[in-house]
Amino acid sequence: MADNREADFLRELYEDWSSRMAANPAMSIADLRSMFDEWGKPAREPEGVSYKSDEVGGVPGIWAFPQDADSARVILYTHGGGFAVGSADSHRKLAGHLASALGVTAFIPDYRRSPEFPFPAQIEDGIAAYLGLIERGFHPGFITTAGDSAGGNLAIAIAFRLRELGRQLPGSIIAFSPWLDMALRGATLEANAATDALVGRQILEGMISMFLGGTADPLDPLANPLENDFQGFPPLYINAGGAEALLSDAESLSEKARNAGVSVTLSVVPGMQHVFPALAGRAHEADDELLRISAWYRAL
Amino acid sequence: MADNREADFLRELYEDWSSRMAANPAMSIADLRSMFDEWGKPAREPEGVSYKSDEVGGVPGIWAFPQDADSARVILYTHGGGFAVGSADSHRKLAGHLASALGVTAFIPDYRRSPEFPFPAQIEDGIAAYLGLIERGFHPGFITTAGDSAGGNLAIAIAFRLRELGRQLPGSIIAFSPWLDMALRGATLEANAATDALVGRQILEGMISMFLGGTADPLDPLANPLENDFQGFPPLYINAGGAEALLSDAESLSEKARNAGVSVTLSVVPGMQHVFPALAGRAHEADDELLRISAWYRAL
Repeated sequence: MADNREADFLRELYEDWSSRMAANPAMSIADLRSMFDEWGKPAREPEGVSYKSDEVGGVPGIWAFPQDADSARVILYTHGGGFAVGSADSHRKLAGHLASALGVTAFIPDYRRSPEFPFPAQIEDGIAAYLGLIERGFHPGFITTAGDSAGGNLAIAIAFRLRELGRQLPGSIIAFSPWLDMALRGATLEANAATDALVGRQILEGMISMFLGGTADPLDPLANPLENDFQGFPPLYINAGGAEALLSDAESLSEKARNAGVSVTLSVVPGMQHVFPALAGRAHEADDELLRISAWYRAL
Repeated sequence: MADNREADFLRELYEDWSSRMAANPAMSIADLRSMFDEWGKPAREPEGVSYKSDEVGGVPGIWAFPQDADSARVILYTHGGGFAVGSADSHRKLAGHLASALGVTAFIPDYRRSPEFPFPAQIEDGIAAYLGLIERGFHPGFITTAGDSAGGNLAIAIAFRLRELGRQLPGSIIAFSPWLDMALRGATLEANAATDALVGRQILEGMISMFLGGTADPLDPLANPLENDFQGFPPLYINAGGAEALLSDAESLSEKARNAGVSVTLSVVPGMQHVFPALAGRAHEADDELLRISAWYRAL
């Protein structure tokens, strides 16, 4: 069962974080951020990928350049971490693996995080980076917005905001274990509470409080994509782990977007934890998922 | 004074760590490790470098492959962190910049750390990785052992241990801000106490206690290179920041090795903090230092 042991790496990392947060309920945001930067540990280095620290549209971040990538195509990868933690550094390898699988480049913005910068700062930075890519000559149809967890929310919210601004939407959207419902109505929050090693109502409530700053509406359609209208949206690839508390968010997103006529692919991998593609290069469940996304992308 | 602002990034990072440790004196080793992994934040991504997660001689770590590097030459880069914290991840960019400057490849081992694995586990892993490189076909003369802080100690201790084992020494050694004297006799520990934003007697005593496990001798010549004999050593490049508490260790090393007939280059950059090459790509003081090391290496 060597395969299962490899996937266990992520569950054990989450269990370790959960026990460290439980042991230290007053952990500072600085310490939480350095702990969540361990999100980069599960993935192995994607081979043949080089990087560049840069600013795009005024937003700092990291480029990933897989060798032989189509340099006309790009992923705008918004990292997860409840809008408050996580970074371009913590998600460099995951975004590098995804870019490599798709044969494209990627830019991973270090968008402003809550609580210092609440909603909609994250979406504004995503829009600035997107428009920065357009300025550099990328065609919107060759841009994929992608992200995990809260970053999966942002990958979608950026498209909603672009529509409000009368701009062309990205050509496709990828959401790994997206966290969407700021009202926490998903049935798996309770049903998978025992199997999800990290995410639960308590940690999400803390993230919501920092993100919405106690003033924005949890049903604001820019903060909560499940309250928005997906009509005219580009093809959407969604995944989730079968063990996760946020599985309902992925399922609700899939249903809602499909009902609006969007081309949706939903991949739920049994037994997997939140953002299981973070195991890329280590566990076959993550690598198989990247192969499926690659096949989906190349057939668009 | 934009230049100075860039170098301030490292001092401010150290001040932040110092204040977080002061606020939480019982910080767990897990939390200390995630905090010290922020050591990767100051450097910008070295461009044109790709990576591979691997094991060499049974030791896990990361390869850095600069494009156009001479693949027959390699740096064995042992990261700093008092033998207890720091990682291949935290030092990937620094080792990538150094490899790029020298036009060679690098392997950054994730050696076993104290307190779980006290002295001499770190040296044993360094030797295993070194012999693993030999097995892969690298000629000893084309291997450079290099490291920063406690990793600078290891870069030297590996050579001493190789001599004990009757093996050929590396072709050259590079030590950034090496921490060598486990007996803490350096004059700058007090003289630079006010200017060093991170390192002081208290943090070093904690590291010594974990490294020597309360049993090994602080004057053991494998744990304390200042107590060893440098006769027959390869060319040695040493640097330090003028503001650091460990400046005396670099100066004592330089004097001791020179007196033993070793070709020594010592570079002390005024005003700089501990391991200032960690600012590579951000501050000219670090990039200038890498240029000096490149010129030194290419003239060997």
